[in-house]
Amino acid sequence: MVVGSPVVNTYPLSSYTFGTKEPKMEKDTSVADRLARMKVNYMKEGMRTSVEAILLVQEHNHPHILLLQIGNTFCKLPGGRLKPGENEIEGLKRKLTSKLGANSPALVPDWQIGECVAIWWRPNFETIMYPYCPPHITKPKECKKLFLVHLSEREYFAVPKNLKLLAVPLFELYDNVQRYGPVISTIPQQLSRFQFNMITT
Amino acid sequence: MVVGSPVVNTYPLSSYTFGTKEPKMEKDTSVADRLARMKVNYMKEGMRTSVEAILLVQEHNHPHILLLQIGNTFCKLPGGRLKPGENEIEGLKRKLTSKLGANSPALVPDWQIGECVAIWWRPNFETIMYPYCPPHITKPKECKKLFLVHLSEREYFAVPKNLKLLAVPLFELYDNVQRYGPVISTIPQQLSRFQFNMITT
Repeated sequence: MVVGSPVVNTYPLSSYTFGTKEPKMEKDTSVADRLARMKVNYMKEGMRTSVEAILLVQEHNHPHILLLQIGNTFCKLPGGRLKPGENEIEGLKRKLTSKLGANSPALVPDWQIGECVAIWWRPNFETIMYPYCPPHITKPKECKKLFLVHLSEREYFAVPKNLKLLAVPLFELYDNVQRYGPVISTIPQQLSRFQFNMITT
Repeated sequence: MVVGSPVVNTYPLSSYTFGTKEPKMEKDTSVADRLARMKVNYMKEGMRTSVEAILLVQEHNHPHILLLQIGNTFCKLPGGRLKPGENEIEGLKRKLTSKLGANSPALVPDWQIGECVAIWWRPNFETIMYPYCPPHITKPKECKKLFLVHLSEREYFAVPKNLKLLAVPLFELYDNVQRYGPVISTIPQQLSRFQFNMITT
């Protein structure tokens, strides 16, 4: 008898509307630049906390995640870095509006931030992150939290012109660390405890 | 500001006592036998539901998971198959007592079954499982649920003589699918959302 999984409503991709808005350029043009800026900010502000959103839709009765694609290969979750002292829920709403909200406030989704599903740690000013703070690391450089965001039946997303918004099925992410990296490729495992209520409207 | 992670108390491995008891032999001597028996049982009882426990201890301020080792290489979580219609919480307690409880009932831990952290699906009578039910699979053959089990400060475990009980650190499991398989090697990601309160008594 399988009982008690938290339920997540998912709506068809076709129930959402997608427009475009002005480009949101990446702050860094290379990984080396990004790590250097991280170091400068760490000296000023201490550990970086970033928050990212898992936005779910369904197609063919299977959950899909919305990813932002930069260029032809690199994909990321919508989200970003909190300001020092910023509340993580409010910060994630701010970042989602910046990345995917329309310029007209009335059209911006009322973001419903749900469960935290994963926390990743960056022990050093390097690209590698771990799903725990490694032993002997007393001063991690970044903590990244992933949240489920519960979408309503209808939403309007404004996608920056330099990015593409993709709906990627869980079966494409699973076991695909080469294409999506360690954080995004294990989202299927982190979502496995949820029961998806696939609504076909 | 990072807030609101569920807290899990973990106690040192040294606070637990380990004894031995009669061997618990595996029902099947090969993977082929196991899949054949699964097929026979499926015909009689329908989809198999199995439940497994994540028992946490700490060493050197890092979480460790208790795994049962069979022979020299194969590791598994304590747990097993539910009887048809059996409640999953009660079934997991029954399996834990069978695998790790003393023969004297007074010494058996009062198993505190906590959060479900992952659900895996077996679409066919094959070894491969997925953290979702794949599209077009209407009759999965097994559903396996992993639960956190909250241990008290002192417990007595009786380990069957043919098995070894190992405390394996998260950093050893992470990204180690070759040694531990896809289910156990992604437990660190599934536990990342928890905050471990390492108690050193």
